[in-house]
Amino acid sequence: MTTQLMDAAVMDKPMSIAIKQIEIPVPKEDEALVKVYCIGVCGSDVHYYEHGKIGRYIVEKPIILGHELAGEVVQIGEQVTNVSVGDRVAVEPGVTCGRCEHCKSGRYNLCPDVVFMATPPVDGAWAEYVTVRSDFLFKLPDTMSYEEGALLEPLSVGFHAMKRGRVTAADRLFISGLGPIGLLAAQSAQLLGVTEIYATDVLPFRQSLAKEMGITVIDPSKENVKARIEDLTEGKGIDVIVETSGNARAISDTVNLVKRGGRIVYVGMPVADEVPINMNQLIDSELDVYGIFRYVNTYPAAIQALSRSNVDITKVITHKVSLKNIEEGIDIARLQKDTSIKVMIYPNL
Amino acid sequence: MTTQLMDAAVMDKPMSIAIKQIEIPVPKEDEALVKVYCIGVCGSDVHYYEHGKIGRYIVEKPIILGHELAGEVVQIGEQVTNVSVGDRVAVEPGVTCGRCEHCKSGRYNLCPDVVFMATPPVDGAWAEYVTVRSDFLFKLPDTMSYEEGALLEPLSVGFHAMKRGRVTAADRLFISGLGPIGLLAAQSAQLLGVTEIYATDVLPFRQSLAKEMGITVIDPSKENVKARIEDLTEGKGIDVIVETSGNARAISDTVNLVKRGGRIVYVGMPVADEVPINMNQLIDSELDVYGIFRYVNTYPAAIQALSRSNVDITKVITHKVSLKNIEEGIDIARLQKDTSIKVMIYPNL
Amino acid sequence: MTTQLMDAAVMDKPMSIAIKQIEIPVPKEDEALVKVYCIGVCGSDVHYYEHGKIGRYIVEKPIILGHELAGEVVQIGEQVTNVSVGDRVAVEPGVTCGRCEHCKSGRYNLCPDVVFMATPPVDGAWAEYVTVRSDFLFKLPDTMSYEEGALLEPLSVGFHAMKRGRVTAADRLFISGLGPIGLLAAQSAQLLGVTEIYATDVLPFRQSLAKEMGITVIDPSKENVKARIEDLTEGKGIDVIVETSGNARAISDTVNLVKRGGRIVYVGMPVADEVPINMNQLIDSELDVYGIFRYVNTYPAAIQALSRSNVDITKVITHKVSLKNIEEGIDIARLQKDTSIKVMIYPNL
Amino acid sequence: MTTQLMDAAVMDKPMSIAIKQIEIPVPKEDEALVKVYCIGVCGSDVHYYEHGKIGRYIVEKPIILGHELAGEVVQIGEQVTNVSVGDRVAVEPGVTCGRCEHCKSGRYNLCPDVVFMATPPVDGAWAEYVTVRSDFLFKLPDTMSYEEGALLEPLSVGFHAMKRGRVTAADRLFISGLGPIGLLAAQSAQLLGVTEIYATDVLPFRQSLAKEMGITVIDPSKENVKARIEDLTEGKGIDVIVETSGNARAISDTVNLVKRGGRIVYVGMPVADEVPINMNQLIDSELDVYGIFRYVNTYPAAIQALSRSNVDITKVITHKVSLKNIEEGIDIARLQKDTSIKVMIYPNL
Repeated sequence: MTTQLMDAAVMDKPMSIAIKQIEIPVPKEDEALVKVYCIGVCGSDVHYYEHGKIGRYIVEKPIILGHELAGEVVQIGEQVTNVSVGDRVAVEPGVTCGRCEHCKSGRYNLCPDVVFMATPPVDGAWAEYVTVRSDFLFKLPDTMSYEEGALLEPLSVGFHAMKRGRVTAADRLFISGLGPIGLLAAQSAQLLGVTEIYATDVLPFRQSLAKEMGITVIDPSKENVKARIEDLTEGKGIDVIVETSGNARAISDTVNLVKRGGRIVYVGMPVADEVPINMNQLIDSELDVYGIFRYVNTYPAAIQALSRSNVDITKVITHKVSLKNIEEGIDIARLQKDTSIKVMIYPNL
Repeated sequence: MTTQLMDAAVMDKPMSIAIKQIEIPVPKEDEALVKVYCIGVCGSDVHYYEHGKIGRYIVEKPIILGHELAGEVVQIGEQVTNVSVGDRVAVEPGVTCGRCEHCKSGRYNLCPDVVFMATPPVDGAWAEYVTVRSDFLFKLPDTMSYEEGALLEPLSVGFHAMKRGRVTAADRLFISGLGPIGLLAAQSAQLLGVTEIYATDVLPFRQSLAKEMGITVIDPSKENVKARIEDLTEGKGIDVIVETSGNARAISDTVNLVKRGGRIVYVGMPVADEVPINMNQLIDSELDVYGIFRYVNTYPAAIQALSRSNVDITKVITHKVSLKNIEEGIDIARLQKDTSIKVMIYPNL
Repeated sequence: MTTQLMDAAVMDKPMSIAIKQIEIPVPKEDEALVKVYCIGVCGSDVHYYEHGKIGRYIVEKPIILGHELAGEVVQIGEQVTNVSVGDRVAVEPGVTCGRCEHCKSGRYNLCPDVVFMATPPVDGAWAEYVTVRSDFLFKLPDTMSYEEGALLEPLSVGFHAMKRGRVTAADRLFISGLGPIGLLAAQSAQLLGVTEIYATDVLPFRQSLAKEMGITVIDPSKENVKARIEDLTEGKGIDVIVETSGNARAISDTVNLVKRGGRIVYVGMPVADEVPINMNQLIDSELDVYGIFRYVNTYPAAIQALSRSNVDITKVITHKVSLKNIEEGIDIARLQKDTSIKVMIYPNL
Repeated sequence: MTTQLMDAAVMDKPMSIAIKQIEIPVPKEDEALVKVYCIGVCGSDVHYYEHGKIGRYIVEKPIILGHELAGEVVQIGEQVTNVSVGDRVAVEPGVTCGRCEHCKSGRYNLCPDVVFMATPPVDGAWAEYVTVRSDFLFKLPDTMSYEEGALLEPLSVGFHAMKRGRVTAADRLFISGLGPIGLLAAQSAQLLGVTEIYATDVLPFRQSLAKEMGITVIDPSKENVKARIEDLTEGKGIDVIVETSGNARAISDTVNLVKRGGRIVYVGMPVADEVPINMNQLIDSELDVYGIFRYVNTYPAAIQALSRSNVDITKVITHKVSLKNIEEGIDIARLQKDTSIKVMIYPNL
């Protein structure tokens, strides 16, 4: 077989991405080759684009970013049995070892040997094709679009937050921050039957999108959040808070906002590591607090919850661009926070 | 205060209920007097009416039956603070001690000293008024009708089954039996976001009602249930079975129908105590099996889940009769299984 | 019946306790009168003695302190059936409502209407007799001494911490702080089969007592705790930390000390409410964090675990004084931290 | 490297095992070669020896049995990092895929693609050497013998039963059947701090061994088990039953023996699949029932619990034989139930 070429968006250095012709990868025996139809721009992609690093992960050589994707299986390795050529699939972008303590105990998101797309030095999928170990491919039902398939990745963060926080339809939920993760966390809750969701954000665009989704929005720059919650819940209070903003002040406020015996799930990472927490409140109220690292076992669960529901997660998609215009897409995500939530890239249009 | 009288449906002996004038009860300091607007006919009421006993509970003196109710608070004891006169409330019909091992550990449904309405010798509420300890009254949101309030009781059985079976939106669910409990169990699942529900029953009326609710119905008298499930789930199988029929054959079949590592919740009680169970299948498949006794902490949870949802539980109400016509209502429930699900009594119309 | 008098240690104002003759209380119908044989001095008692308040609880009139006790039932109310005159019992010192949301869901420690001994304005039991609602009395097996019975109260804090932190024999445990609660938390872990316990404290007396109990002690003033743990566990790390010191620095350190996916239970309350927490570490390591408020359902569990075990919790008792010498006992607890852990008072010796 | 030979016990057909010289296997890149020091005779080995099959597993070609083993690492593949040559290790005998739904969710014991030693057509380890994927090797602490290492396999069944049944030191436990699994289940409970264990068996040898371990034995052929339990627990009843006998009558009895709200774990598989179960009791008592298939994540947990404890699991070893005398060892296990529990084989003595 002669080598074939494809377009890929290669970042040579921060603030510089070029479409290059590279070889289409060949799937190993346990991999499939996926033709990428739809792939999102994530906050982490933007951060690598701007700064060339996130924490201990540093871009030291050209890299392809992008890890929120769905596409079509076009070739499979000889051991692959769970998907076939022609299948429409969502891609879970982290491939884990399956053998460590964490993998064996059902928390493979903590696998120290995970190979995660678009995390240096591992390439992502802002390209026409990508190979993926087949157990991380999940068939999309006919009723689900590629857009929904690609959104399963950020939705998974919300879904995992709900599971960690043991959120059910019996709970009053508060979402702090209405960026892509906050909005999709709210929709994850709706998929689980949660009927009463409060949320905070200062951006009008995000507020109005949340309201469309049936979320009760509180503007923390204009209202006393705690008093408003007290009023809206008739004193019953908040059972679970999911903090997605990463804002230090919002993080500190959580322990005062949640009810006695309540739960807090922290998703958004603050700029400075240390945040002052009222420990006496946390102790006296006997709170449960959970950190979230990515997600685990969410793809089948989210597909199951989503496929026949009336929750429309594609509402978070505000812009669609082709792969050739990827830098334009990134700029929208970077600079137009007032009018954009999720930018989708289409490598094969 | 002069004693006032009210109508009540008093059963002197099996198959004989008469409306009598009895004293309106006076609430104790921790009780409220509830004017009963809507109260269902339960299978256990019918059973007492026909046989005068259920297991170890024997009707030995005249009794008022009925325990699925909602109404309006018209008087409160001096210690009552959680409800006020004029409040529309659902009534949880079992009053527990709050002090035993089970009560203290959050399983008050197992309280050995529970005083449960319409369980001999305790009177129920087929009457114009009833007194209830106020912590078992739950305010109905404006959006919820008295009918929905009364249905919270049988819905609670379904809700509790879902909690015991750890059912979430990620699960494929199978409901065995589509009587009132089976149908409301299915709707409990829908309130939790479950999207894929299969169910069996042989009665066409029940089948069509279930289909209206979005449930995929299988007729076990016409189809091979296991093969059909295998086909419909594309081999993925059933995560959780909730058995509500009490049919011995259906009970036996559960361990073969559920997938490996699955869960079974048994709700329906068979006529004969002993049912043959394939223990090797239960062990080899590492199943979880749960019995259900009534419910616990379901009223606030179900109100929360139901009040803003689009699930309409009143679909199970097929007949409405006044208190004076109570025996007619009971006969419908007893004899017209082909056309009735839940019969509602209105003591104050 | 003529009124009879007893000795009680009454605190009129901070730093002033006098033995007074007061009436022996008469048990209500659901209460028992307990002759107090053994009752501990708790840190909270000492704090009220020194400062006249703890947080929102202020001593505004004379109060009897003391809430860690065991004794003999000498009289019972007419409704009491779970204990008899002559029974040796431990007393759980908080009486809850049994009717609120928290009580009904198995978390009665969060009951807003709890009546807790020695918490202003409620009297405690530094006296010859005390009345207690009988469901908070727990019979001691013949093999358990009154001292062990009294110690069930502080042990309960440790036991509850273990339950909240889901600690099992499979875990490597770290206890921060070796005061009475830290030491009894470690012994709670041993009762659950935990074999590998590390702990920190700077006081040599506490360190040596911990070593006697089989705990591996690290002196944070002399050693790098994290490096030492890394070394001692051969890189496997700590599964659960129970923080009992209340020291702000120790609290901050927990998120760095625990392994990825680990759990932290916070028991000790810091002097200043806010403590800086590395939230990025908490999130990235996907930690579980639990606050602890008193305990719930621990008495039967701890009696069961303790009664046939070879764990000797009386090792924490360093001093025994009579009721008449109570201020001496308090001074030992206040001022001799280098040589005392738990001081026991004997009102009937 | 020239091929080297080793002794192995090869079963050509039922009731016929011969020591043959076969090639020492060569470890793949992710495997280690283990020199087998100690390996038990399991009931399943005996069953294959007698009948040539268990259920759907049929011996169709010569097979080496044995799967309870410990030994020394003598060679490692190039990718192996978790063990080194010279390490003393226990071997978990089932190698799982790490990629299926069950593996990813922490229940790898349900992996449909598991390769399990001594389960036709997969060879076991009654041989001088065996190769094992290295993530299923667990280093033994210096304090643990090879015998203890080999016993981790049957102990794991008990340990898993305790985890499934959520057994803690707060529970009263009943073990039905005192064969190797029953005895090791009791010791698993002791490792978790359980202090009150009742058990039944009719064989005097097993009874006396259990008594030595601190278990209270009831002889069901001489005593009314339910009455005896009622008496011994002073009416408190049994929290958890672990059924290991596989006896149909004993299985049926469990639902009557356990207390209301209790748990039953079924381990022992009956000869006939179907056993009559009192479903009304199971439902009315709101029981939890759990099947057990092998074990999952037990090796690290059991090593941790066992290594510093005073529980001596080697008490179950009643006979030790060399590999050459393996058929003698099997005969002891088969025919001398009155005097044997666990027979150990030593391939390298």
